[in-house]
Amino acid sequence: MTGYVRTLAERARAAGPAIAELDDRGRRVLIETMADALMAAEAEILAANAEDLGRAEAAGIGAALRDRLRLDGSRLAAVVAGLREIAVLPDPVGAVSHRERRPNGLMIERVRIPLGLIAMIYEARPNVTAEAAALCLRAGNTVLLRGGSEARASNVAIAAALHQALAALALPEAAVALVADPAREHVLELLGLTDLIDLAIPRGGESLIRFVADHARVPVIKHYRGVCHLYVDRAADLALAQRLAIDGKVSRPGVCNALETLLVHAEIADRFLPTALADLAARGVEIRGCPQTCAQWPDALPAQADDFGCEFLAPILAVRVVASLAEAIEHIRRHGSDHTEAIASGDPEAVAAFVAAIRSSAVMVNASTRFNDGGELGLGAEIGISTTRLHAYGPMGLDALTIERWLVRGEGQIRHPDLQR
Amino acid sequence: MTGYVRTLAERARAAGPAIAELDDRGRRVLIETMADALMAAEAEILAANAEDLGRAEAAGIGAALRDRLRLDGSRLAAVVAGLREIAVLPDPVGAVSHRERRPNGLMIERVRIPLGLIAMIYEARPNVTAEAAALCLRAGNTVLLRGGSEARASNVAIAAALHQALAALALPEAAVALVADPAREHVLELLGLTDLIDLAIPRGGESLIRFVADHARVPVIKHYRGVCHLYVDRAADLALAQRLAIDGKVSRPGVCNALETLLVHAEIADRFLPTALADLAARGVEIRGCPQTCAQWPDALPAQADDFGCEFLAPILAVRVVASLAEAIEHIRRHGSDHTEAIASGDPEAVAAFVAAIRSSAVMVNASTRFNDGGELGLGAEIGISTTRLHAYGPMGLDALTIERWLVRGEGQIRHPDLQR
Repeated sequence: MTGYVRTLAERARAAGPAIAELDDRGRRVLIETMADALMAAEAEILAANAEDLGRAEAAGIGAALRDRLRLDGSRLAAVVAGLREIAVLPDPVGAVSHRERRPNGLMIERVRIPLGLIAMIYEARPNVTAEAAALCLRAGNTVLLRGGSEARASNVAIAAALHQALAALALPEAAVALVADPAREHVLELLGLTDLIDLAIPRGGESLIRFVADHARVPVIKHYRGVCHLYVDRAADLALAQRLAIDGKVSRPGVCNALETLLVHAEIADRFLPTALADLAARGVEIRGCPQTCAQWPDALPAQADDFGCEFLAPILAVRVVASLAEAIEHIRRHGSDHTEAIASGDPEAVAAFVAAIRSSAVMVNASTRFNDGGELGLGAEIGISTTRLHAYGPMGLDALTIERWLVRGEGQIRHPDLQR
Repeated sequence: MTGYVRTLAERARAAGPAIAELDDRGRRVLIETMADALMAAEAEILAANAEDLGRAEAAGIGAALRDRLRLDGSRLAAVVAGLREIAVLPDPVGAVSHRERRPNGLMIERVRIPLGLIAMIYEARPNVTAEAAALCLRAGNTVLLRGGSEARASNVAIAAALHQALAALALPEAAVALVADPAREHVLELLGLTDLIDLAIPRGGESLIRFVADHARVPVIKHYRGVCHLYVDRAADLALAQRLAIDGKVSRPGVCNALETLLVHAEIADRFLPTALADLAARGVEIRGCPQTCAQWPDALPAQADDFGCEFLAPILAVRVVASLAEAIEHIRRHGSDHTEAIASGDPEAVAAFVAAIRSSAVMVNASTRFNDGGELGLGAEIGISTTRLHAYGPMGLDALTIERWLVRGEGQIRHPDLQR
């Protein structure tokens, strides 16, 4: 089977110029045509999804995973609406971030171009197949998609619709390549295609990300764990801090920007913890506290060492009382995942010290960790939230699927005129 | 020996906050103090370099490599002057590229922060030890340096001077870590330290880069081959094109932005090639031509297939006549290295087509390939020229040693207010 993914990737790469050389309008029309094609193929896509769901049920796959796998008319309509939003996003390609005339007369520009061929490696949600393809193509790239085996039939049906859209515009279908056979050996092959793939983006559980990170020779931007912290400073508005804690933990516990650990300054622990933890507990949150926390809120379970730094992705919250801002920073440095950290404080000096010391992809001041999201931060759509401190850090929008190169215009300038006198 | 590099890297990472939290002035003073310390240690550094040179001579190492290894008073003074230039470069840290108030009142900023710990893996030139350390620290990072075994004594002496500068300012010496033992097993260990190293930059020959690319699990930005092309269009000013060819090939054949292949439109081949190739040959350049080139210039050697795409790094030039601009583009796509490509043409349409189709890190229009250099493009200093289409593409200045993160300021905003009514 070796060579199966290489062949797909070679064709996708060869399709690159056809997509990269479309103008803004051409790529917008392409994404809108993809949205139309998905609507038109609704029956086929839902039938394929029913097949995947039937297989999942027969295999005894749990309800949560089956829910992530499931498509219906309204979920597909949401995917289509998302594509229409991507279609009208500002075009990143061709943007000039810097223009300068050098003393020798050369005109220098830094201009955005597509990255090239992007590989997405993801798990159950079949909507990613359409959304990742749309984002990559909108930014002028081609894409190699490797979804999870559970969603195989759904992904094939979605890719077929996208191919129809490409064909309708006389564009190469290979611009959206689906690795239909999800065997791990194909992922391994993909991760070694350094001559063809410019970037691989894994999205999924920790074991998938680790597998990719351990085996990739192509560049990878990881969308890894979100172990998000909220530090409640001694100068915090305690009602505000309580709202942030509840929003962070309760509004959607299973996502990467959900709150996992609450750090509370010792000076306000007795005023904050009983009320805040009672509220959280009343909303079904299990509290795992340090000894000082348990002293303030006896219903808390004693936290074990590995509760700190744990991505629960569940209604569980680790809580620790810290003696100082410095101790909170030290805790986050040791246990954080570089995803999102928040501070609740009315003290500008404490805020400044926290912002300077914490280098996570997003730092929230008196705001919920749940705002670390491409839509909430104004990017319009995101292909993931990078926890790799390279190229893109935090939510990755269209810009993150491009790169700046140098364009230099002259009138015959040379570096060593003395050689040619 | 396992753990030797990890220990160094752990200490360098622990030193990170001390450097990152310096302000602009603090980092400028640090780099100037490093420059002073190098000057003060001139005798020790030159003595150590003499030891390296003696060992190199005894080992029968060639004159070219020994020249790259050699330091003397004026070369060290140039390194010191380079550091003083780095000291006064604009501070990238803290720069805000985007500021926006969201409808919910959140104030969003994208702010530059240091990358963290950067590993440089390089070969003979000991000046890289000082320059890379200065660039990394100027941008708020700490650095792990692994130079070549030939320059071992020189690198130790230079690092000792840099440590004196750090100590004089009460900063941790571990911020500049030198892997003094250059054994390959230590490079292997370094390349696996994913929990400690944010970026590895290999600089050197093809075998070093390949070794790093094949074994790295940490993120890598490659400074790889420069197989630079000049395409002389049928609408070119032929005298201008000839000047570009000579500058590209003759001014410094051993560097990565030197010209390696000349592509000439068939319509002007008979007017361009005899004069241009005579000039190049008179300057000692060996011409390896396609059959049409040899027909125009019988002194050319017949090019072999692997002459195209070859990084000669020597006074050798591959020359090919192409039937069209499209054929030139196709040739570059097949044989180029994404480093630097130039077009000589007075036809705006040909220029636009070339610029759109070629995605190298720098495209030169009527200018020499030799301008793809941080100093020439206005960056002030560069740590390398990236041929990786991710994070940084082309010359990497201080900006490329930082990353943007998100800073969000609110007054208690939450994502799901309905939950808390």
